[in-house]
Amino acid sequence: MEPFKVYILGCGSALPTTRHFPSMQIVECRGKLFMVDCGEGAQLQLRHTKLSFGKLGHIFISHLHGDHCFGLIGLISTFGLLGRTAALHIHAPAGLKGLLDKMIPMFCRDLGYEVIFHEVDTKRHLTVYEDRSLQVETIPLDHRVPTCGYLFREKETLPHIRRDMIDFYQIPVSQINNIKSGMDWTTPDGQTVSWEKLTTPAEPPRAYAYCSDTAFMPTLHELLDGVNTLYHESTYADDNLLMAQKYHHSTARQAATVARNAKVDKLLLGHYSSRYTDEGVLLNEAREVFANTFLTQEMDIFEV
Amino acid sequence: MEPFKVYILGCGSALPTTRHFPSMQIVECRGKLFMVDCGEGAQLQLRHTKLSFGKLGHIFISHLHGDHCFGLIGLISTFGLLGRTAALHIHAPAGLKGLLDKMIPMFCRDLGYEVIFHEVDTKRHLTVYEDRSLQVETIPLDHRVPTCGYLFREKETLPHIRRDMIDFYQIPVSQINNIKSGMDWTTPDGQTVSWEKLTTPAEPPRAYAYCSDTAFMPTLHELLDGVNTLYHESTYADDNLLMAQKYHHSTARQAATVARNAKVDKLLLGHYSSRYTDEGVLLNEAREVFANTFLTQEMDIFEV
Repeated sequence: MEPFKVYILGCGSALPTTRHFPSMQIVECRGKLFMVDCGEGAQLQLRHTKLSFGKLGHIFISHLHGDHCFGLIGLISTFGLLGRTAALHIHAPAGLKGLLDKMIPMFCRDLGYEVIFHEVDTKRHLTVYEDRSLQVETIPLDHRVPTCGYLFREKETLPHIRRDMIDFYQIPVSQINNIKSGMDWTTPDGQTVSWEKLTTPAEPPRAYAYCSDTAFMPTLHELLDGVNTLYHESTYADDNLLMAQKYHHSTARQAATVARNAKVDKLLLGHYSSRYTDEGVLLNEAREVFANTFLTQEMDIFEV
Repeated sequence: MEPFKVYILGCGSALPTTRHFPSMQIVECRGKLFMVDCGEGAQLQLRHTKLSFGKLGHIFISHLHGDHCFGLIGLISTFGLLGRTAALHIHAPAGLKGLLDKMIPMFCRDLGYEVIFHEVDTKRHLTVYEDRSLQVETIPLDHRVPTCGYLFREKETLPHIRRDMIDFYQIPVSQINNIKSGMDWTTPDGQTVSWEKLTTPAEPPRAYAYCSDTAFMPTLHELLDGVNTLYHESTYADDNLLMAQKYHHSTARQAATVARNAKVDKLLLGHYSSRYTDEGVLLNEAREVFANTFLTQEMDIFEV
């Protein structure tokens, strides 16, 4: 299977600590890199992954709190110094463009590439990016400012051809794509062989959803159809349920409830409040609801 | 003596690497902290020093290139989250205020303290900060955009009283401050004792100068009168002298020439180009001109 991975660049919340960078991730899918959120230190963390900067074409920002976007200008500036020429696309809620339009001319004179801004409507569930093999959908979330998550969904792929059957029926290579696309084969003596007999099914498409920052949303699972791996913020443990409600964040238990209702395979926790010096409490509370839960840490890599 | 120290938070140049943060320092003088330059990751590095955030009242920015100021907004935001109430003063060339006036309302709603901006005239040698024991002077530098260094100069202190002489002449405690300030003592029988006989001289005032970024300035030493410790950028070694000239930076040898001409005690190098994976070459070339030269590294602490 093609690689579909999530690199954790940071998993802390608003108050940076010596233990965690703010929230940011890289999603790798079929050779392309996508960044989700871009806190202070993003370029440094991206360097640590040793991933190729040139493969990053799109950055998705969930909302305009500093811990999710203060690293953008440094990244844009450094890409310029490194001689980038390919356009960089930034998908973000309204407001960021005006700021970048001021900062880029001020700090990135003679930038050798284009920064293309795409304003995201955080209130609607829309496809905001699409290529041959992947689409990215917004997930409206409930936070103090306009916020959305992002769902990375592989497209259906064609079935695999069965080499043994092709040989048996002596089917010419020129027909293989037709068969994979669903066309039956007719033998020289007029016998029809169903394409399904000549192929094995494709792997089911995988999907990764990033949901941060958000209050607990009891119906969120309805937007997570087909998601294998869910990252859901878990700023607090049960001891701070009221804080979570007040600041529109979630507890680890609430994150796990979403994961259970969405029937995902795997839940990733993050956006930890700095008050938890040991995030084990978050993991334990989540696992009471959804067993296949994992804590994220900087430089972790998860397969979707 | 009162502590007068320089903490190196970062010593790299524009292109951050996994080895160096961009240029930034903390100057500690008599219990107060001053920041000079504030690149991306400043708040993280400041945390690593374990210095008290509350003692930092003034930030001095040399020029508006990103590697010298991208960390400001994160620092301002974090101070707000930590409940700061004391004003924060930012001294910087024209242009930064307009940007902060846009970013602070956007990212730091309900900031519980005031950010007071002081526009610095980078072309003149002026005192821009003063308290009872310290003054900070600008040092006009030669870079591609308006740039100045900063000189932290202790004020003269009063001489030390000689306990033995005070006892010998049975001088009342109430007279001690007068004597330290230069008043002679007249004994009950009319004999005049010079204040100089009753005291030992104060330590000579110390001074630290931060000069970055700048081309080699042959007359720079004229502005460094009384400086003990000089930080002078050394972006390049001799092999890139032309690059230094082109981009208005200095070589390590040029930094050492300034140090020698200014007759400082100690030279600190920094703002290393990312092309030098071993900065020993910079140190060696500088020491050919000025022996008491040191490389700075993140988390180094130097006594002035």
